[in-house]
Amino acid sequence: MTPLVSIIMGSTSDLPVMEKACKFLNDMQVPFEVNALSAHRTPDAVEKFAKGAKARGVKVIIAAAGMAAALPGVIAASTTLPVIGVPIKGMLDGLDAMLSIIQMPPGIPVATVGVNGAMNAAILACEMIALCDDSIAEKMAQYKAGLGEKIEKANKELAEVKYDFKC
Amino acid sequence: MTPLVSIIMGSTSDLPVMEKACKFLNDMQVPFEVNALSAHRTPDAVEKFAKGAKARGVKVIIAAAGMAAALPGVIAASTTLPVIGVPIKGMLDGLDAMLSIIQMPPGIPVATVGVNGAMNAAILACEMIALCDDSIAEKMAQYKAGLGEKIEKANKELAEVKYDFKC
Amino acid sequence: MTPLVSIIMGSTSDLPVMEKACKFLNDMQVPFEVNALSAHRTPDAVEKFAKGAKARGVKVIIAAAGMAAALPGVIAASTTLPVIGVPIKGMLDGLDAMLSIIQMPPGIPVATVGVNGAMNAAILACEMIALCDDSIAEKMAQYKAGLGEKIEKANKELAEVKYDFKC
Amino acid sequence: MTPLVSIIMGSTSDLPVMEKACKFLNDMQVPFEVNALSAHRTPDAVEKFAKGAKARGVKVIIAAAGMAAALPGVIAASTTLPVIGVPIKGMLDGLDAMLSIIQMPPGIPVATVGVNGAMNAAILACEMIALCDDSIAEKMAQYKAGLGEKIEKANKELAEVKYDFKC
Amino acid sequence: MTPLVSIIMGSTSDLPVMEKACKFLNDMQVPFEVNALSAHRTPDAVEKFAKGAKARGVKVIIAAAGMAAALPGVIAASTTLPVIGVPIKGMLDGLDAMLSIIQMPPGIPVATVGVNGAMNAAILACEMIALCDDSIAEKMAQYKAGLGEKIEKANKELAEVKYDFKC
Amino acid sequence: MTPLVSIIMGSTSDLPVMEKACKFLNDMQVPFEVNALSAHRTPDAVEKFAKGAKARGVKVIIAAAGMAAALPGVIAASTTLPVIGVPIKGMLDGLDAMLSIIQMPPGIPVATVGVNGAMNAAILACEMIALCDDSIAEKMAQYKAGLGEKIEKANKELAEVKYDFKC
Amino acid sequence: MTPLVSIIMGSTSDLPVMEKACKFLNDMQVPFEVNALSAHRTPDAVEKFAKGAKARGVKVIIAAAGMAAALPGVIAASTTLPVIGVPIKGMLDGLDAMLSIIQMPPGIPVATVGVNGAMNAAILACEMIALCDDSIAEKMAQYKAGLGEKIEKANKELAEVKYDFKC
Amino acid sequence: MTPLVSIIMGSTSDLPVMEKACKFLNDMQVPFEVNALSAHRTPDAVEKFAKGAKARGVKVIIAAAGMAAALPGVIAASTTLPVIGVPIKGMLDGLDAMLSIIQMPPGIPVATVGVNGAMNAAILACEMIALCDDSIAEKMAQYKAGLGEKIEKANKELAEVKYDFKC
Repeated sequence: MTPLVSIIMGSTSDLPVMEKACKFLNDMQVPFEVNALSAHRTPDAVEKFAKGAKARGVKVIIAAAGMAAALPGVIAASTTLPVIGVPIKGMLDGLDAMLSIIQMPPGIPVATVGVNGAMNAAILACEMIALCDDSIAEKMAQYKAGLGEKIEKANKELAEVKYDFKC
Repeated sequence: MTPLVSIIMGSTSDLPVMEKACKFLNDMQVPFEVNALSAHRTPDAVEKFAKGAKARGVKVIIAAAGMAAALPGVIAASTTLPVIGVPIKGMLDGLDAMLSIIQMPPGIPVATVGVNGAMNAAILACEMIALCDDSIAEKMAQYKAGLGEKIEKANKELAEVKYDFKC
Repeated sequence: MTPLVSIIMGSTSDLPVMEKACKFLNDMQVPFEVNALSAHRTPDAVEKFAKGAKARGVKVIIAAAGMAAALPGVIAASTTLPVIGVPIKGMLDGLDAMLSIIQMPPGIPVATVGVNGAMNAAILACEMIALCDDSIAEKMAQYKAGLGEKIEKANKELAEVKYDFKC
Repeated sequence: MTPLVSIIMGSTSDLPVMEKACKFLNDMQVPFEVNALSAHRTPDAVEKFAKGAKARGVKVIIAAAGMAAALPGVIAASTTLPVIGVPIKGMLDGLDAMLSIIQMPPGIPVATVGVNGAMNAAILACEMIALCDDSIAEKMAQYKAGLGEKIEKANKELAEVKYDFKC
Repeated sequence: MTPLVSIIMGSTSDLPVMEKACKFLNDMQVPFEVNALSAHRTPDAVEKFAKGAKARGVKVIIAAAGMAAALPGVIAASTTLPVIGVPIKGMLDGLDAMLSIIQMPPGIPVATVGVNGAMNAAILACEMIALCDDSIAEKMAQYKAGLGEKIEKANKELAEVKYDFKC
Repeated sequence: MTPLVSIIMGSTSDLPVMEKACKFLNDMQVPFEVNALSAHRTPDAVEKFAKGAKARGVKVIIAAAGMAAALPGVIAASTTLPVIGVPIKGMLDGLDAMLSIIQMPPGIPVATVGVNGAMNAAILACEMIALCDDSIAEKMAQYKAGLGEKIEKANKELAEVKYDFKC
Repeated sequence: MTPLVSIIMGSTSDLPVMEKACKFLNDMQVPFEVNALSAHRTPDAVEKFAKGAKARGVKVIIAAAGMAAALPGVIAASTTLPVIGVPIKGMLDGLDAMLSIIQMPPGIPVATVGVNGAMNAAILACEMIALCDDSIAEKMAQYKAGLGEKIEKANKELAEVKYDFKC
Repeated sequence: MTPLVSIIMGSTSDLPVMEKACKFLNDMQVPFEVNALSAHRTPDAVEKFAKGAKARGVKVIIAAAGMAAALPGVIAASTTLPVIGVPIKGMLDGLDAMLSIIQMPPGIPVATVGVNGAMNAAILACEMIALCDDSIAEKMAQYKAGLGEKIEKANKELAEVKYDFKC
């Protein structure tokens, strides 16, 4: 099975956050791989990974990193695949990671999602893959159509809240 | 000509920033359209646009907005196409727009780029389109290969800087 | 009973915060309704709600949202009723929600209160309704007159604090 | 003519910002007054003003202030009229004023608008007055219906932007 | 006993922080009083207190407040006594309170200390009183001379830390 | 003439800001001195100054500094006189200087005023000196009584602003 | 044994953070000393330490401090040895300490590491010492070569994560 | 001439800032080189540079970068030489660059200086080189001894400032 999405994280401590991305891709039946790489600890491996990803069939890369989060940008430097960056919450509420990922120089974009936004990264990856895969496109349409259910459920719960002057 | 990328901005005052996106797409020969829409002034038009974009053949949407920048997220709410958000610098250095765009709830991601990052938004759009368009993919590879030229040129200029103890 | 105030939240997880608004309105005997809506999950329902609220007799809308908090602004886009926004504390101390709600473009204001300021939102709603309802106006005057009691009680407690050189 | 809206500012240096509020109210034919008051320089006058405003027929108070912007909150402390706060941009991008105005304790809300958001303050005031004034309500509905025109005009301008691959 | 220092807080919830100020003043045998007042709940009482403090013999006022912390500035508006402001940590790490207290307009200063800096406020008050009270001046000199003891004690503890290469 | 207030700054580039403090003290006829010292460039001179100030008759020290503004705190470390710190606006809007000055450890307070708040520092110094100098106290009372004049003047100017619906 | 690295902290409460620096130096067999000093409590001792460190054979100084963290800069003022500053996390997420340490005026640099970055401070110290000590240089090369192991281990753990569509 | 210090910048637009570093090294007669490299545009060249620097005789690397400033950290990943990072002021006052450079993960430190702190970076580099070069050490001692001159000059200028009550 060729992975269409490659999830990269800098440490297994990011796994509890990134598992939401894994789960979403799995639910969508999109083949993916999960690896640890570090722009600062294993720069050679990062470069090798980034340069080879497209040839291996990978379509989208999701890279999660915290603090001085160089990983997504460094991967983006060595590939023409779209790279999605996930800032991991840490010392400064994740603002350090967000700025380190999003403020890329012209020429090497990283598609950044919110702090700990692993699930949104996976959705974004599927939306990209769906551009040339009608089966995924249909699944995404169904997924989006179902988003309102959470609100419907919330409304049922709110209907249970009782006050004399609640209509 | 069917537009593959749809650029949306909230005001013509954003045009000087967004023209870098237009120019990049034009250079890459990727058909695009440019329109003004506002999540707050023309909510119906936004919804109509977002719901119809895919059927019209649009592949990627780039939405630029400043301040309480709801536009990219509101577009993302009504389409399964990938939406790229460009925070426009304004009152609070663009940090208000960045946070308003990037901190989306699970289910409706916006691929956010840096403040005023119009060109990176266009590159990201091309990288997505390149997933199912080899011609664009090749152009992007050439573009990325050429990124080093700016550095080469910089090195030539730096070679001209003279100090007694500069080697 | 026609609701005069409509409280909207994006998730039942906001209910513990927003219950203070419910309780205040209930104490003031102001009829209200509570519903869940999401600018990103149920955009159609939001629009339908906002466009129809005035005709249903609603006077003021209180909308609570966290993160990229588009809900209050998107509601304000489709109604001429005053909309009060409550930023819900989340990942970035609620500053992301506050900026997403308050920094509205000219033409579509949201009356924003402090982070998690549900009770103040309800008071503000009553102050607005009191503009054409003398009964509420009187209750608000009584409420405000009673605000000093908390300080009186505090002074009694402070009187119990004993130090040799405390006068 | 009894003023329905009372605009208060701490200094005439705020007038260039606050004139947008004056102009909007004037266009809507809502009688208003404009005065200077300072929570720190003329505390007695502030209190007298706040306590007497309602009896004079004022419906809504708009208070603008910069830096340690105590004025809106201090006015709100002595009236049951709704108070709208406008943070004026100053030393710290207006963030100091915004936080000083919005983070009110429970019991004394200030309806805060964005930094330098004078026009939105005036619109909000009209929306409140419209709750018991059908003539203003109608004008506000017309105003809101016209908001899209700016976008229409922007689209005409954008139609003039020429690129080979612009559709 | 006439209080030389008057400690004001907005709520008994500030007492755990402000007790450090009480304790320090007590240790220095400086008579003080402790009261609750609120710029927003009891504006009349605040003004009455501020206007009368000097005549009662108070020399320095310490005012603690959180969030939109108007209390210190409002007190300063009605007295020529030096007012020390203590920002209380709350929703936004106390930065909202700090900016609300420190950014006073020209003419009405508040001597601001760090977040939750109750003890430093008391020390500052004593330093001011010591300007015309040699007995307090001497106590403060002794206190300051003893500050190094904490470091001496720390060095003894650090001497116990054992590593092979620790000298 | 013995200086009662000693103004210290780190550079003559701070003089345009600090001249407001000089002018105020001069107007109040409070003898003062102005010197340049640097916690980082002339640490010995700072210590000598701080240790000797009280014996020379100085009552209050005003220390202005920007960036990593150690000067006020380092002076406070070697004197029992009250030290007023003025954060000078620089690279990060003066927030770096403000935090460097205000967040002092327990035991060594610095009375901090707002960014570039030189005049307020001088007023605060006079308020302290007035504690044991009735002549200064009276002048300060007169000064404070006159603060309202600026507002009176503003009101006259605002009376000139003409709108059809301005009352 | 002459200490090559001198670790200074302001309080034993910093020890849990700084122990990572001790442990690293110990593992590298670099002799070090650990002392408590305070720019604000023991200014004389700080100056004496800083002026004498080089003559005692110390090569690098690591200074940790929180809040208004003047210690590293004040030490740097009195020595020509490189000083590494470690901002300690406190009230404002350590941002106050970071800015207080890093924003030094021209002439007196402090080599600042991240919030609570004790271990990186120790590594940096070793890298400096290695400039004239081949034995340390070799150890550092080995250490750096081993950094990838953490990633290898992480990859082994990630290989255990099971999903149907994980490749 | 073998360069002891290697200055790297991402763009010639950083040269006006970094020239202060060149000038200082030149004044100290420390041989240096200046090159442009980019972690994102020329990743291969960065890695080659970083891996080869030590063998070429370079002792210290100074890397300047703005925005998502990955360059210093990526260089540090591939060398055991000390790397000094200079955050270049840009869109967000340089705070984005500062956090991107300073918040490095354990194992790969970057010695960070203040925003645009090029001169301090050069001084720090000289302090490191001075650890094994007595000639540089002596020059640095002379330089540091001369730092007070700026203050002496400032005092002469301040002596010229005339006020009636200036002593």
